[in-house]
Amino acid sequence: MEKLKRKIAEHGTVLSDEVLKVDSFLNHQIDPELMLAVGEEFASLFREEGVTKIVTIESSGIAPAVMAGLKLGVPVVFARKRQSLTLTENLLTASVYSFTKKTESTIAVSASHLSKDDKVLIIDDFLANGQAAKGLVSIIEQAGAKVCGIGIVIEKSFQTGREELDNLGIRVESLARIASLADGKVTFLQEVGS
Amino acid sequence: MEKLKRKIAEHGTVLSDEVLKVDSFLNHQIDPELMLAVGEEFASLFREEGVTKIVTIESSGIAPAVMAGLKLGVPVVFARKRQSLTLTENLLTASVYSFTKKTESTIAVSASHLSKDDKVLIIDDFLANGQAAKGLVSIIEQAGAKVCGIGIVIEKSFQTGREELDNLGIRVESLARIASLADGKVTFLQEVGS
Repeated sequence: MEKLKRKIAEHGTVLSDEVLKVDSFLNHQIDPELMLAVGEEFASLFREEGVTKIVTIESSGIAPAVMAGLKLGVPVVFARKRQSLTLTENLLTASVYSFTKKTESTIAVSASHLSKDDKVLIIDDFLANGQAAKGLVSIIEQAGAKVCGIGIVIEKSFQTGREELDNLGIRVESLARIASLADGKVTFLQEVGS
Repeated sequence: MEKLKRKIAEHGTVLSDEVLKVDSFLNHQIDPELMLAVGEEFASLFREEGVTKIVTIESSGIAPAVMAGLKLGVPVVFARKRQSLTLTENLLTASVYSFTKKTESTIAVSASHLSKDDKVLIIDDFLANGQAAKGLVSIIEQAGAKVCGIGIVIEKSFQTGREELDNLGIRVESLARIASLADGKVTFLQEVGS
């Protein structure tokens, strides 16, 4: 998605060979127009899959997921990373290991918002090691629902997540694929046909 | 806002005299169409204030804030409740006490996303005791920016938050005002002219 790649090139900051800071339009400050374009792109890519629900994870996944939900006409559920007062009973959970923080955490979705008839599109802001996405896949499968695809805003293609999700046989669409952050520079993956 | 009140009446669950569960369309599962309507309403209410930025707080404030940002054509910044790897330096912070959880926590916004020229609209999903909103006001004032209003999706008018914000002299617009959750029933405030 050219508009997104331009935004990354102009406003992203490479903090290290592994960390890209996009706090000015995605992760802390959000560009709503860009999120609408991202949502439209996901809707266009997954429209034929018969999506009935979108699942994402708080907090940075919410904006792109809600825009995709608006364009596909389906509800969005965000997995919680911590307990909430009014979200106690009947939780589907998964354990997610963060390589950056080196901590294990639990993500949770209320079982009442996923049914075995759901065809679920997973949306997330980043794909790095794939741990968060795999946790969401596990939760959706616990509900007996079907994962019909994963939409990622920014994929760090030099990490293992994409390959791990491909190995699960799940369709993954990433709107920007980054081949490298070496030398303080964002290098996008050259894709066939692009 | 009638559409929102109908949704609360039909899909909200009263858990106690003080707690309303709206997990099916706002706090956990999100109804994107309703959020768009909420964003349009906020945009319409605050259009004349010259808003340059919206500030909200993760996670449930993000969806209504992003839709309001889309309609007003301004960026959205969400305050973080916990530390993040790529969000370390130069933070504006405030301490927020949660009456429900009986814990004190810190919320943070990167100073680079607020300037003294900003006219900020605060958006949040709930107004109860006003602690989160007052924390956001403090952060915005630390940046030297102006708070030009507060937009709330659901106000629990029987708690003290509305009065405390009114006392600060800030314009507050709540799209649904709840007078009482007694007897397991949602009773809306009867407003003059409505």
